[in-house]
Amino acid sequence: MSNTTLVPAQPNAIDPESKRDAMKPRHLIESQQLTVPLLMELFKRSRGMERVVARGGTLDYQNRILATLFYQPSTRTRFCFEAAMQRLGGKVLSTEHAGAFSSEVEAEQVEDSIRIIGSYSDVIVVRHPEAGGAKRAAQVSLVPVINAGDGEGGQHPTQALLDLYTIYRERPLVGLSVAIIGELDKGRTARSLAYLLAKFERVKIFFVSPPELQMKPDILDYLNEHGVQYELEADIDRVIREVDVVYQTRIRPERVRDRQELQHYAINSSVLKKMKSDALILHPLPRTVELDKTVDDDPRALYFKQAANGLFVRMALLTMLLD
Amino acid sequence: MSNTTLVPAQPNAIDPESKRDAMKPRHLIESQQLTVPLLMELFKRSRGMERVVARGGTLDYQNRILATLFYQPSTRTRFCFEAAMQRLGGKVLSTEHAGAFSSEVEAEQVEDSIRIIGSYSDVIVVRHPEAGGAKRAAQVSLVPVINAGDGEGGQHPTQALLDLYTIYRERPLVGLSVAIIGELDKGRTARSLAYLLAKFERVKIFFVSPPELQMKPDILDYLNEHGVQYELEADIDRVIREVDVVYQTRIRPERVRDRQELQHYAINSSVLKKMKSDALILHPLPRTVELDKTVDDDPRALYFKQAANGLFVRMALLTMLLD
Amino acid sequence: MSNTTLVPAQPNAIDPESKRDAMKPRHLIESQQLTVPLLMELFKRSRGMERVVARGGTLDYQNRILATLFYQPSTRTRFCFEAAMQRLGGKVLSTEHAGAFSSEVEAEQVEDSIRIIGSYSDVIVVRHPEAGGAKRAAQVSLVPVINAGDGEGGQHPTQALLDLYTIYRERPLVGLSVAIIGELDKGRTARSLAYLLAKFERVKIFFVSPPELQMKPDILDYLNEHGVQYELEADIDRVIREVDVVYQTRIRPERVRDRQELQHYAINSSVLKKMKSDALILHPLPRTVELDKTVDDDPRALYFKQAANGLFVRMALLTMLLD
Repeated sequence: MSNTTLVPAQPNAIDPESKRDAMKPRHLIESQQLTVPLLMELFKRSRGMERVVARGGTLDYQNRILATLFYQPSTRTRFCFEAAMQRLGGKVLSTEHAGAFSSEVEAEQVEDSIRIIGSYSDVIVVRHPEAGGAKRAAQVSLVPVINAGDGEGGQHPTQALLDLYTIYRERPLVGLSVAIIGELDKGRTARSLAYLLAKFERVKIFFVSPPELQMKPDILDYLNEHGVQYELEADIDRVIREVDVVYQTRIRPERVRDRQELQHYAINSSVLKKMKSDALILHPLPRTVELDKTVDDDPRALYFKQAANGLFVRMALLTMLLD
Repeated sequence: MSNTTLVPAQPNAIDPESKRDAMKPRHLIESQQLTVPLLMELFKRSRGMERVVARGGTLDYQNRILATLFYQPSTRTRFCFEAAMQRLGGKVLSTEHAGAFSSEVEAEQVEDSIRIIGSYSDVIVVRHPEAGGAKRAAQVSLVPVINAGDGEGGQHPTQALLDLYTIYRERPLVGLSVAIIGELDKGRTARSLAYLLAKFERVKIFFVSPPELQMKPDILDYLNEHGVQYELEADIDRVIREVDVVYQTRIRPERVRDRQELQHYAINSSVLKKMKSDALILHPLPRTVELDKTVDDDPRALYFKQAANGLFVRMALLTMLLD
Repeated sequence: MSNTTLVPAQPNAIDPESKRDAMKPRHLIESQQLTVPLLMELFKRSRGMERVVARGGTLDYQNRILATLFYQPSTRTRFCFEAAMQRLGGKVLSTEHAGAFSSEVEAEQVEDSIRIIGSYSDVIVVRHPEAGGAKRAAQVSLVPVINAGDGEGGQHPTQALLDLYTIYRERPLVGLSVAIIGELDKGRTARSLAYLLAKFERVKIFFVSPPELQMKPDILDYLNEHGVQYELEADIDRVIREVDVVYQTRIRPERVRDRQELQHYAINSSVLKKMKSDALILHPLPRTVELDKTVDDDPRALYFKQAANGLFVRMALLTMLLD
C-alpha cells in the first residue's frame, strides 16, 4: 500500500548538495516562506500524490494525527485537509467551529490551546479570526502549524499553493500575465497568491477591483521591491483580452456602493467571448454573483479542478512537515 | 479481518442471469428507486453485516472516505452512517451542522459544495433543509449521494430501509397490516416507508393522524396507482386491535389544536393491552409524548433494535454503492 | 505495532489473588469509584502508554469505536479522549456541541440517545449540562460510559485521574499537603480531585476560596468520614509556603464581589517566590486571571505536562473499560 519511492522521506538523499532541509519550514504561515525550490519540491510531491489517489492507495502515516482547529467554519477547506491526512493513512481530530462555542477569551488564548493540542496531535491546521493568529500559534507549538486562513487581511498560503499548482499543471510559470479580481483589500487568497507569483520571472499582475477595495500597499510595496510588474485597474474589460490567467475572487455585493458597478468585475458568457482561447479561469470558491454558472461548462474553467488539486498539494505539504 | 465471502463484490457472480447491476442505483435519493430484488439483495447483505459486527470484524474499505454533509443536525443518524463506514474499515469526514455557520447562500449552493467534496471523498451523505435538496446534490456529484433527509415533506429513504428491514427480520413482508401514525403531512420517514411497503403484495396501510395533518395526496395517489389498500383514520383505537405493525412517529404538541387530542394518537400501557400479542412497535425516534417510556419494556417494542439495525442496513448500502 | 505485554488484557493474570476484575468498574462516573489498587493499575498502564506514544506505536483497537457525546463543548477534553482512542488504533464518532442544535428535550432524553449510540460504538464519553447526567446515561447504556464533566457542581473524574497521575509521576502520594484554590462551590475538577486525594494516607488539603465560593458540605462531610485533614482558607498567602502541591483552578472575575479580592487567589511571580522550591503547580486549564503567564517558565509549573498526561491516562482507562 505504501509508496515511499514516490515521496522520499529524505529529500536530500536525491539532491545531496541542496540545502533543502535547512530551508524546509517547520510551519507554513505565510506564502513568503515558500522559495522556488521548495515550491518545485512540493509540486513534484503533489504529482506523486495524484498517482497515489488515482490508484486508491495510501501511505504509511497510520500513526499520525492531524488536528483542525477552526475558530471560523469552512467545510470545504477543513474537509480538504482532513481528506489529505486520511488519504495518507492518518487520523484526524476535528473542530467544525471552535469559535462558536467559546468566549472571546478562547481565541485570545490560542497559545494555551495550541500547546495542549500539540501533545495530542502531530500537526495542527488553524483558522483564526485575526491576522497574525496563525503566527502566534506557531510561536508556541510543539508540532508543525499550518495557517488555513487568518483574518480578513491575513493570509491563506495553502490556497495560494493549490492555485499556483493548478496553473503549473497547465503551463510554465515564467512570463505569466495574471488578472486578480475582487475585493482585494480583504482577500487573503489574493494576497497570498500575489506573494507567490512574485517569485517567478517576468510575471505581470493586474489587480482589478473597485478603487475603494484595491490591493493594500503592503503587497504593492513587496512587488515593487522585487521588481514585479503590476497595474491597478477598475474594469475587467481593460485586461480580459490579454491575460493568461483570470483569478476571480468573491465580491460581496454589500461592499460595492452601487450594484450596477458589479458588472465591471463579473465573469459571464459575454466576458468569456473576449478571453484568450487558452486562458485559465480560477476561483477559490465559494462564489456569489461574480462568477456565473454558465461559465462552468467552458473548457477554460478550472475552478473545480483547482479545488480537487487542494487534496494533492495538502497531502504533499503534510508529508513535508511530518517527515 | 476481511470477509469477502459474506459480501460478494459482484452480486452478478452469484446470480448470473439477473440484471442487478443494471438496476443498481448510483445514488439513493427516494424510496421509489428500490425495487424488490434490490431490497432483498440489501437485506441479505445486511444479515451478513450483522455477523461481521457480532464477531468484531471489519471489511476491506480502509482507503475509502465517507463525507457527511448535514445542513441540519442529527447526531443519531450521522453517527449511524459514520459508524457504518468505520465498521467497514473506512474513514469519515464529518459536519455536525454545516448550515449553522454559513449564510443561506451556502445551502443554496449545495451543487458547488457537492462537486468539491466529491473530489475529497468516495460517497456523500447529505441532509438538506429543502425537499429536493438531495436530488440537486446527486445531479452534479462525482460520487454516490445518499439522502439522509431532505425537507419536512421530503424523504429519508435509509430510515425506511431500516424500518422495513426490522419488520423483515421478524416476519414475511407480504400480507402485512400496518398502522402509520403521527403528523403525516410532514413526516418524511412515514412517506418513505409508505413507498416501500407499496412494493409488497396484499399490504394494507392505515394512516392515523389528526385530519389536518394527514398524509399528502402524492403518496395516496401513488398507492392508488399501485393498487395498495389504505385507510385514513383519526383515532389509533380504530385500528390498534387488527394491525401487525404499529409505526409510530413524532407528534409535536404545538401542531395539534387541542392537547387533549394527542391521546388519540399516543401509545401507552392501555393501548398496549389492545394490541395483538405478536404485533411489532416501531418508532424512528426521537420521541416526544406520543410514545410512553412504559412501553420500552414490552417485548413488542422494537424501536431500539430498529435503531441498531440502521447500522447493518447502512453498511450494506455503502458496500453496494461503493463497489 | 501492537504491544500487549505492556498492557495485559487480563490484569488478574499478573496478580492472581487480587479481586481486580470484581472491582473493575464498567463505567467511570465518579472519582469515588476508583480504589487505590485500581488507581495503581491505571497508573501502571499509563506509564506503558507513555512508552507506546513515545515510540510512535499503536495498539490493537482498530475495530473499536469511541463516541464523544458532548452537550457542552470542550475542544481540549474532547480532543484528548479522541486522540487517546486513535493512539490505541481505534476510531471516533464525534460531537462538537450536541446541545447547541437540539431542543432542551434532547439533553432530557439522554437515555434514548445513549441506548442508540451504544449500538454504534464500543464506549461513550459524555459531557452533560446537569449533575447526575452521566449516571443517568450509564444506567441504560449497552457499553461503558465515561463522565467527561456533568454540571457545574458535578464531577469530572478523568480530570482528577490525570491530575493525580501528574503528582504521582513526581512524588509519593502519601503525606501530601495540597492547596486547592478557586471557586470551589462549582468546581467539578476540584471536587473530583478531593475525593481521590482522600484515598491516600496523611494527606492534608487546604481549600482556598472566597468564603462565599467555598467547597460544599458534601465533600467536607466525605473527608470528615474518612478522617482526612483539611482547612478552609480565604487567602493563598496563608498556605503557600507549606504546601507540596498547588492545584489552581479558574476564578471567573464576575463571581467575586470585588475584583481587588482576586489578588488573594492568584498565582503570579510574587507568589512563586514564597512557594517551596520543589512544589508542583497544577491547573486544569483554561485559565483566566488567576494564573499569570509569567508562571509558565517556572520549572514548578506542570500544567502543560498535566494536560499531556491526560492522553496517557485516558488511553489506560479506555483499555481497562474495553478489555
